[in-house]
Amino acid sequence: MYKQNHLSNIRVVLSHTTHPGNIGAAARAMKAMGLSRLYLINPRHFPDPQASAMAAGADDVLQNAVVCASIDEALDGVVLTVGMTARQRDISNEVSVPREAMPQVVQQAQTLQVALLFGTEMSGLTNEEASRAQMLVNIPANPEFSSLNLAAAVQVISYELSVAAQNYQPVEQSLQPAAHQQVEGFMSHLEKTLHEIGFFTTQNPARMMQRLRRLYARARPEADEINILRGILSVTTEYNGRLKARYQQEKDV
Amino acid sequence: MYKQNHLSNIRVVLSHTTHPGNIGAAARAMKAMGLSRLYLINPRHFPDPQASAMAAGADDVLQNAVVCASIDEALDGVVLTVGMTARQRDISNEVSVPREAMPQVVQQAQTLQVALLFGTEMSGLTNEEASRAQMLVNIPANPEFSSLNLAAAVQVISYELSVAAQNYQPVEQSLQPAAHQQVEGFMSHLEKTLHEIGFFTTQNPARMMQRLRRLYARARPEADEINILRGILSVTTEYNGRLKARYQQEKDV
Repeated sequence: MYKQNHLSNIRVVLSHTTHPGNIGAAARAMKAMGLSRLYLINPRHFPDPQASAMAAGADDVLQNAVVCASIDEALDGVVLTVGMTARQRDISNEVSVPREAMPQVVQQAQTLQVALLFGTEMSGLTNEEASRAQMLVNIPANPEFSSLNLAAAVQVISYELSVAAQNYQPVEQSLQPAAHQQVEGFMSHLEKTLHEIGFFTTQNPARMMQRLRRLYARARPEADEINILRGILSVTTEYNGRLKARYQQEKDV
Repeated sequence: MYKQNHLSNIRVVLSHTTHPGNIGAAARAMKAMGLSRLYLINPRHFPDPQASAMAAGADDVLQNAVVCASIDEALDGVVLTVGMTARQRDISNEVSVPREAMPQVVQQAQTLQVALLFGTEMSGLTNEEASRAQMLVNIPANPEFSSLNLAAAVQVISYELSVAAQNYQPVEQSLQPAAHQQVEGFMSHLEKTLHEIGFFTTQNPARMMQRLRRLYARARPEADEINILRGILSVTTEYNGRLKARYQQEKDV
C-alpha cells in the first residue's frame, strides 16, 4: 500500500523563482511524489502559461499555490524549515544529505508543519533565508558540475521524502519545538533587547544576530522554553529601565 | 572524496524522445550526477536549440551523444540493460525499485557496460524494448499521479546511481554475463532454429520468443554458455538436416 504518512504537513517553498516553467515542473515533481502544498515567495511570473504547461496535470498544485510577499509569511506555522543548499556554507549549521534528512522530516511531519525551502535558480538561498532553516541539506553532486536545475532538485528531494514516507516507522516524539513565528518573535525580542541594553555598541549587530540564530536553531526550543527566554528578556529590559531611571535620578540630584 | 566508481561504463539510452528540451534537461541531470554517456535512439529533433538551452552547461554531454537508428545499435557492447517502466508489466520479469537496483548497476559497471533505457515521454518503453532489458525498474510514485517527466526520471535514477557509487564496496564478481549482441545472436539463432525444426507450427512465434527471452534474461548466460547454447542449436539443425537428407534419399530410392 502507498503510504502518504502526513506528507500534507510538508510544504515546498520556492523563493524568488525566475522561470515560471520551473514552478510548473516543480509542481509536477511534487505531485508525482505525493506532495501538494506549494508556497511561492515573490515569483517573477505567476500564474503563467509556461508554469501550467510544465505542470502537465499537476494544475491543482499550481491553483492551490500560496503566493507570499516574505519568507516569514511563507513559513507561518512552520516548526521545522529545511533549507536546500548547493554548497557547504561558512556557518556552523550542519549540512546533511537528503537520505539522512528526509526520514527526520517525515517524522516531524507526523505532528508538525515542515517547510522545504528552495532559493533562486541562479544563486540559491540568501544567507538571510538560510538562517531561517533549522536544517540545511545538500544534494551530493559532481564537484565539476554541481548545477542541478531547480525542478530537478525539487524532484530529488520529493523522491527521497516519498521513499522515507514509505519506510517510516513511528517512534516516540520527545521534543515539541516551537513554531516559526514564535522563534521569530523571540529573535526580534532578543535583538531589540540587546540594542536597548547597549550590547551592540562594540559588536556588528547583523553578524552577532546570525550567530545567535544559529545557536537557537541548533537548540530547537520548545514553546515553553521560548516563553522562558522571552521572560528573561522582559526582565532584562525592566532591570535596564530601572538602572537608567536611577542613573537619571542621581544625575538630577 | 567524490567517487566516480566507473560511472563511465554506464550509458543513458533515450528511445524516440519527442521533446528536445527533455534531452537537454536529461543531459544536465546526468552531468550533475557524474554521468556522461548519452545515447539517443531516433530522437524526433536533435541536435536542437531547445536541447542546448536546457542542458545549461552540459553541452559536452549533448556533443558526445550517440544517435542510433535502432535499439540494438544503442545497446552494442552492453551486458546489463536496465529498463525504466512506469507500470507493473504483465510479464514475469521482476520489477525492482531504484534503491535496490542501482547498487547492482554500480557493481556490474565496475567491469562491464551497462545501459539505462528510457522510453518515450508519452508511453514509455514498448514491450519489444522492455524485452531487451535484464532488469526492470519502477520509480515508486503517487498512484493517483504517477506521471514523472522524462528528465525528472533520469534525474532520480542518476541521483540513486550516484549515491550508490559513493557507497559502493567491492565484492567478488561471480558471474560474467555475455554482452548484448552475443545474447541477441543467440536469440536470432534460436528463433531461426525453431522455425527450421517446425516448432512454431502450433505456436504463436512472437509470444513464444518473448517467453524464451524472459527465461534467458533471468539466466543471464555467460559468453561460454552462449557458445554452448548455440552449439546445441547448430547440432540440432545439422541433425535435422541429416534427417531430411536421409528422408529424401529413402524417398528417392
